[in-house]
Amino acid sequence: MASVLPASNTSMRSDRNTYVGKSFVHVKNPYLDSMDEDVLYHLDLGTKTHNLPEMFGDVKFVCVGGSPNRMKAFALFMHKELRLTDSEEDIKDICAGTDRYCMYKIGPVLSISHGMGIPSISIMLHELIKLLYHARCSDVTIIRIGTSGGIGIAPGSVVITDEAVDSFFKPRFEQVILDNIVTRSTELDKELAEEIFNCSKEISNFPTLIGHTMCTYDFYEGQGRLDGALCSFSREKGLDYLKRAYNAGIRNIEMESTVFAAMCRLCGLKAAVVCVTLLNRLECDQINSPHDVLVEYQKRPQLLISKFIKQRLGLCDQTS
Amino acid sequence: MASVLPASNTSMRSDRNTYVGKSFVHVKNPYLDSMDEDVLYHLDLGTKTHNLPEMFGDVKFVCVGGSPNRMKAFALFMHKELRLTDSEEDIKDICAGTDRYCMYKIGPVLSISHGMGIPSISIMLHELIKLLYHARCSDVTIIRIGTSGGIGIAPGSVVITDEAVDSFFKPRFEQVILDNIVTRSTELDKELAEEIFNCSKEISNFPTLIGHTMCTYDFYEGQGRLDGALCSFSREKGLDYLKRAYNAGIRNIEMESTVFAAMCRLCGLKAAVVCVTLLNRLECDQINSPHDVLVEYQKRPQLLISKFIKQRLGLCDQTS
Repeated sequence: MASVLPASNTSMRSDRNTYVGKSFVHVKNPYLDSMDEDVLYHLDLGTKTHNLPEMFGDVKFVCVGGSPNRMKAFALFMHKELRLTDSEEDIKDICAGTDRYCMYKIGPVLSISHGMGIPSISIMLHELIKLLYHARCSDVTIIRIGTSGGIGIAPGSVVITDEAVDSFFKPRFEQVILDNIVTRSTELDKELAEEIFNCSKEISNFPTLIGHTMCTYDFYEGQGRLDGALCSFSREKGLDYLKRAYNAGIRNIEMESTVFAAMCRLCGLKAAVVCVTLLNRLECDQINSPHDVLVEYQKRPQLLISKFIKQRLGLCDQTS
Repeated sequence: MASVLPASNTSMRSDRNTYVGKSFVHVKNPYLDSMDEDVLYHLDLGTKTHNLPEMFGDVKFVCVGGSPNRMKAFALFMHKELRLTDSEEDIKDICAGTDRYCMYKIGPVLSISHGMGIPSISIMLHELIKLLYHARCSDVTIIRIGTSGGIGIAPGSVVITDEAVDSFFKPRFEQVILDNIVTRSTELDKELAEEIFNCSKEISNFPTLIGHTMCTYDFYEGQGRLDGALCSFSREKGLDYLKRAYNAGIRNIEMESTVFAAMCRLCGLKAAVVCVTLLNRLECDQINSPHDVLVEYQKRPQLLISKFIKQRLGLCDQTS
């Protein structure tokens, strides 16, 4: 696969701006290096069966999202945008041996699906971070490009997360380790969020804002919806919860951002969350916009992040 | 699609044994009936776009599992076992318009994937239960056929869950509703578990047991694994946790059973959890058995549940 990276990584803008030298992806596990083999079971990859440094050593951008089809579409889109010389047919699912996740590599960009919810993305992140570590990747930026429910903003708006908060509006992720609960910070990279926001200004008619994102364990009862199989609260209580969320600075709700922020932060990955809103939860619960409208909305984070990546790679003049 | 059900449902064995008359699937949501339309977004189905009673009214068995490929394989297997007259090519993914879940219908059997983890299965269950409710289904048995990590039992053993417990070994599911935590019972149907266990005795060389199943939010740190990207405890602490779990009656660990038990119980679905174990966690963390061995293990819950369904339908003499 053709590389669009300059020969020396240190000439990359991210390096100049934020640190001197390489920042390697790291694990926080003293046992990993002593393992004879590491099977990344849910990715169908492993240290003995695959040459991970050769396959992934040049990865600089990792984009993750819930839906496999969407992440394949993003891979094809990036292939076009980066003007790589290899054929579109060469873009194969690297995790084809499993149906848990899909993964595509487009030059320095990795596009991976993570399913829905904290546990699903957490499994993927453990194995992805180990993959990047085994591949000796450095200076990696990771971005979740997803869908969400908006609060008090027009459907189709793109929210760049400044703070991922839980159902209690707290910027924390509670990780159960054995039978203890450990609280982790969900702080995201502020400079990265600003950089992506600045990119959005260059796209016309592209409603984008920076705000808090609430991450829940459930789509229905946990997000104050009245249309699940179970609903035990009144319309007023549900709306009051969403309004309190709005007043706390929350502009959208999704189901992965807290653990994503917490794990990436611990392992040296600069992380951002960029989600489009499919509806305004102060107005309705059901996602019933026409199919083509929803499809267009879902392309927005892809468009923005493609612009961001091209800018980082110094390719903007050539393609936009 | 050909029906293998007798004309009158009341002649079914399950009806005779366990209740008089029909037990309808119900929702616990006072708002649902007043909705003009119900879009089951993640299933790509809806009350206005689909005739749900016609499509699903005869469903009596719902089988769910994490992997889409596995649930397709189960559908094809059930098609063969039930000796339906329609062609195998007619078995199409009913949710083909979305890649969140897949769904196949084989006579009275529905086979659906749910992804990994509590949030992912919870979204599917909300929409599945509403589907069964809108379709006016009655006397429905639901079974999760999954994979798991065993504790102190040989890999390949099938565990039928008598009690789904959380990371603290408690038979409860904590549901966040708005910003309150509500504790729900995770009791499963004991008679159903016994009935499935009795079926297992009729299959030779089929190690099966009834035991507690622990449901966690995480595959690595939450299950005491030393091979994740993050690990902050010692080998001894991890093993001690698993041994304490064993002493509390837990025989396997997976990531969906508590919310599955809690939601099905609340909505009138008789539920069972039947998972094969892929490894013995007292011996190792990594799933590194040969591919063909793992494939054979994963067929075991399918084989057992096919036998159970055939027995319920009075088809056993014809096929075994």
